[in-house]
Amino acid sequence: MDSSLAQQLALVLELDQLKRVERRTKVASAGNRQENSAEHSWHVATMALLMEQHANQPVAIDKVIKMLLLHDIVEIDAGDTFLYDAAASLEQEAKERVAAQRLFGLLPKEQGDALLQLWQEFESAETAEARFAKALDRFIPMMLNFHNQGQSWIENGVTKEQVLTMNRRIADGSTALWTQAQQMIDQAADNGWLKV
Amino acid sequence: MDSSLAQQLALVLELDQLKRVERRTKVASAGNRQENSAEHSWHVATMALLMEQHANQPVAIDKVIKMLLLHDIVEIDAGDTFLYDAAASLEQEAKERVAAQRLFGLLPKEQGDALLQLWQEFESAETAEARFAKALDRFIPMMLNFHNQGQSWIENGVTKEQVLTMNRRIADGSTALWTQAQQMIDQAADNGWLKV
Repeated sequence: MDSSLAQQLALVLELDQLKRVERRTKVASAGNRQENSAEHSWHVATMALLMEQHANQPVAIDKVIKMLLLHDIVEIDAGDTFLYDAAASLEQEAKERVAAQRLFGLLPKEQGDALLQLWQEFESAETAEARFAKALDRFIPMMLNFHNQGQSWIENGVTKEQVLTMNRRIADGSTALWTQAQQMIDQAADNGWLKV
Repeated sequence: MDSSLAQQLALVLELDQLKRVERRTKVASAGNRQENSAEHSWHVATMALLMEQHANQPVAIDKVIKMLLLHDIVEIDAGDTFLYDAAASLEQEAKERVAAQRLFGLLPKEQGDALLQLWQEFESAETAEARFAKALDRFIPMMLNFHNQGQSWIENGVTKEQVLTMNRRIADGSTALWTQAQQMIDQAADNGWLKV
């Protein structure tokens, strides 16, 4: 077997472990079990495929999709952190950088370097593609949670102010989605799902 | 909200249900629960992102990735069929066509038509992109199952001949992956995981 293929298959096998990383969101349609980061990554990458027209600036949508397929793989080593847990989030950044080095380091050097750079571009949220990818990644758990009667907000005592603060940056990637998000947040507060 | 966005979000919400469609493969890294079609779709689309160089013919890899993100969404209505269940597979085709019409029909017409066509292209396995996507979709459960001591083959009494017959078409998309697959199949038979 050529050595590139062996290296790539080693990563593909390792990626299986993202299916065991659980998020705070529950899957309403699947008996309210915890959502895992692999199925979340599929959902948000597929959303990107459908949503190109709603990016604030023209984006290379194929790049957005690739970013979203890869954005959470660092959780294989670093685990998932709840968006509203600020203390954990700081420490998380350092763990994720180490994880990215290890995982992309399994690949042939040139390929691994390029994908590490793509992951870093997503993290930095400075390009149009990264900002749109981040907007989708923030929007989708909010939408699922809204359609699940605010489950993870209620369970974790999240306030309307926190949701507005942490998700405001959706507007940097897509004002259309942020308008939609604000309507959900208002409605969730009215329903008593968010503390005001 | 513009009506395109409302239609697209309706599909995004519907897609959540792919997370409840269970496959025969188990996730060894997650307590041996059944794998679902959403996380499988993520795994195989991400594999495509890594594997472009192993396609037999040059492929537009972004198209392969999109096909793989969408290839199983019809299972939301039609459920998953085990590859080695020939009787169910025939009936499945008709159910999946109806499901594709309904799901892609939720989208704005032009977008829905284009994605339905992409799904049909995958199903027909006639283009280089579709053949490579099909090869990855067949390879990955075999690899996971091999690394899970042949679990789904043993549980379902699958023979080496069946695995060779049903997966031979991997070679149409990637001879490199088929070579690798054959080695796993030989080893699995030697280990007693496949009936000979």
